Amino acid sequence: MRKEIVEAALEQFHARGFNAAGVKDITDRAGVPKGSFYNHFESKEALAIVALEEYGLTRRLQDLADPGVEPLTRIRRHFEFFRDEILGYGITRGCLLGNFGAEIADHNEAIRGAVRAGFEAWGTALASAIREAQQAGAVRADLDPEATARFILSAWEGALLLARTDRSAGAFDTFFAVTFGTLLV
Amino acid sequence: MRKEIVEAALEQFHARGFNAAGVKDITDRAGVPKGSFYNHFESKEALAIVALEEYGLTRRLQDLADPGVEPLTRIRRHFEFFRDEILGYGITRGCLLGNFGAEIADHNEAIRGAVRAGFEAWGTALASAIREAQQAGAVRADLDPEATARFILSAWEGALLLARTDRSAGAFDTFFAVTFGTLLV
Repeated sequence: MRKEIVEAALEQFHARGFNAAGVKDITDRAGVPKGSFYNHFESKEALAIVALEEYGLTRRLQDLADPGVEPLTRIRRHFEFFRDEILGYGITRGCLLGNFGAEIADHNEAIRGAVRAGFEAWGTALASAIREAQQAGAVRADLDPEATARFILSAWEGALLLARTDRSAGAFDTFFAVTFGTLLV
Repeated sequence: MRKEIVEAALEQFHARGFNAAGVKDITDRAGVPKGSFYNHFESKEALAIVALEEYGLTRRLQDLADPGVEPLTRIRRHFEFFRDEILGYGITRGCLLGNFGAEIADHNEAIRGAVRAGFEAWGTALASAIREAQQAGAVRADLDPEATARFILSAWEGALLLARTDRSAGAFDTFFAVTFGTLLV
């Protein structure tokens, strides 16, 4: 039952946001009685943290370290995977880390910590891939891999916002063109 | 009374988000009776659109076209103004366009249109300044000004999310270092 609640919460938080997704929406979606919620979670905030951890597991960070693929290709495919996921949602939903960062991180320290941990893990994995791509001569050697990784994450999160408000893939095209055509090379 | 409601709404939406800021929170903050709200606005959504327009007027886009300042300096100062504003809020609140883009644009077409218009006006003003900076030889000539402007806006919006979740200015430092030290030059 706990697993059903977490999966429903992830879907509802991603589709509707933290405040708009009520506990009853989540238990209805999970097909469990609302009364059972507090047997499993102390609060909606506590569930949000578990949902963020679950979301992190779906981000395929391990693909950024796949030795069977050229590092710059890994980086590009990583963002193509995210882009294709969003296109599958009709350019809605965006990234749960960014959404919670915008909506709720200012107001809840535990959620802020979980979002921060998610961005840190992502930035670290991306920085390692950038470093490998530099060693392979595919990315300019004068870039700081850590700073560049965090800048690219920022640009991706912002591109999601622009794409959602345009309901168009234009911001993704710009992200790929500038990141891979100008910034890294 | 309408002006007081708009100002209170802008403050409450920026500080708390669209869903968390109720009509009563806004009218209380404005010092007007809740019942008077619907004399002035059809809905909270309608008020959000007016608040977004008001927010746009505070973004100082005209400074990006100031002929008395070197264009690249204008661009840097433009983002320094935003950074300093956020630092003044203890690295909370972020950008109302980005916040509404994350929280509510998927769910309300009129608000999505207003956020989109805000980003478009901003991107157009920034692209003009980039073009001028290229003509002055301060920005590399091979960049497409429109795409670069939108990429930089994305990177700024994402930097706001990372800075807020870190509650640290590190993401701003990275934004300035990469944008002005690598991307544009």
